[in-house]
Amino acid sequence: MKLALYQGPGLINDPAASFLLLAEKAREAKAQGANLLILPEMFLSGYNIGPENARKHAVTQQGLAPAQAIAQAQNIALAFGYPERVGADVANSAILLGPDGKILLNYRKSHLFGELDRAMFKAIGDEFPIAELHGFKIGLLICYDIEFPEPARRLALQGADIILIPTAQMQPYEQVARHVLPARAYENQVYTAYANHSGDDDGLSYVGLSSICGPDGTVLAMAGRGPEMLFAEFTHAHQNAVRAADPFFTDRRPSLYGPVSSP
Amino acid sequence: MKLALYQGPGLINDPAASFLLLAEKAREAKAQGANLLILPEMFLSGYNIGPENARKHAVTQQGLAPAQAIAQAQNIALAFGYPERVGADVANSAILLGPDGKILLNYRKSHLFGELDRAMFKAIGDEFPIAELHGFKIGLLICYDIEFPEPARRLALQGADIILIPTAQMQPYEQVARHVLPARAYENQVYTAYANHSGDDDGLSYVGLSSICGPDGTVLAMAGRGPEMLFAEFTHAHQNAVRAADPFFTDRRPSLYGPVSSP
Repeated sequence: MKLALYQGPGLINDPAASFLLLAEKAREAKAQGANLLILPEMFLSGYNIGPENARKHAVTQQGLAPAQAIAQAQNIALAFGYPERVGADVANSAILLGPDGKILLNYRKSHLFGELDRAMFKAIGDEFPIAELHGFKIGLLICYDIEFPEPARRLALQGADIILIPTAQMQPYEQVARHVLPARAYENQVYTAYANHSGDDDGLSYVGLSSICGPDGTVLAMAGRGPEMLFAEFTHAHQNAVRAADPFFTDRRPSLYGPVSSP
Repeated sequence: MKLALYQGPGLINDPAASFLLLAEKAREAKAQGANLLILPEMFLSGYNIGPENARKHAVTQQGLAPAQAIAQAQNIALAFGYPERVGADVANSAILLGPDGKILLNYRKSHLFGELDRAMFKAIGDEFPIAELHGFKIGLLICYDIEFPEPARRLALQGADIILIPTAQMQPYEQVARHVLPARAYENQVYTAYANHSGDDDGLSYVGLSSICGPDGTVLAMAGRGPEMLFAEFTHAHQNAVRAADPFFTDRRPSLYGPVSSP
């Protein structure tokens, strides 16, 4: 399977233009043979938009119909972040659409980042769903979630082969892009794709440095600071070889890990 | 507190010479103002020595009296690995001695690495003890333990400020040295010191690349491939500032992490 990752500045408070950008990037990715395109957190509205705009642009999954049409038209799977209306609340969500436009996964960010997130969103998410695409089991996390080892571990324990992470990762947290992502890939023997914004956004300075990592922790592709499209091939053969060489999941000793999940 | 880290080739099957080397490196570290010196896994005997030699050189904690005398004579804390005799078994252990020579911590590797470890050692360890030195709470892990997120997390949840990791880390696992260590430091907001062997050892090619990382994931010092002494300053002020800026441990959601500790 070939993965494409788009890093770029968000189109702030302009979902209509964001759908057009999504269509353009889906075409570009498909032209390069990609089967799946991942884009940043809150791609449809921009991230740092404040609670009023987050509420204004929040949609239910039905509001993603234009993206479903794009996926189907280009025959490419799409993963991106958006503000989700959930009853009276807004969740920071990410969706995975199949190449037929169907919704495969919807994930709600479970770890909110500081006042920035908490002013806009509720942490409605306490599920870590998994879907299958081209024989790979895929899970979603969003930004701050990946800085905690436990959510990625949960996905891996549920059998995830790939973790897709739309993000809006700003200075001074460059260590996350440089080290935490390859570490998560290595320790869980999964492919990771971490799709960030670039540029500045109302006082935030995004680090860029989006990455795609392999199940042995190798950085397969890493972006610079500006807009960029990354590509990488994921194969079952490589992932199986990594897992066969190092049986991390049989060497784990969960009976020693009780305090990790104790309240 | 000033930490010193010694990376070098092990002295294979020669504990007497290893104690002499320990005395020499303790003097060097002390001359640079260090309060604590960490050395590699199985420093006293060499690592890749096979089960017969591991048994032959295994000692109880009483057998570490020469190291206690060195710590006391140089007034420096020492942490290093050794084969520990535990009843009829041998554990892959690490000790932390105070600057007065007293034993502060003894840790037994809880995650054995492949047939190499299993042929020599029993995984007797299921405790993660912590001791205090210069106001820092210190825990020990050994090599493969750090590749799992859970043991370091346990130590951090018990209040560890510093995790010392004697190691014998070989090719092709360079991602661990480059990425997993800074990630563990970052996600747990702890100082880490990862002291590796250098050179070759009966078919193993050690990666070197020992490191000292800060609680924000910054690599404070990293060795090359050969013998080297690293130094870094640890301060409460910096660690407190990192923890105040990002409340990872109040943002955790342990109620979601049950599967991580499920058998």
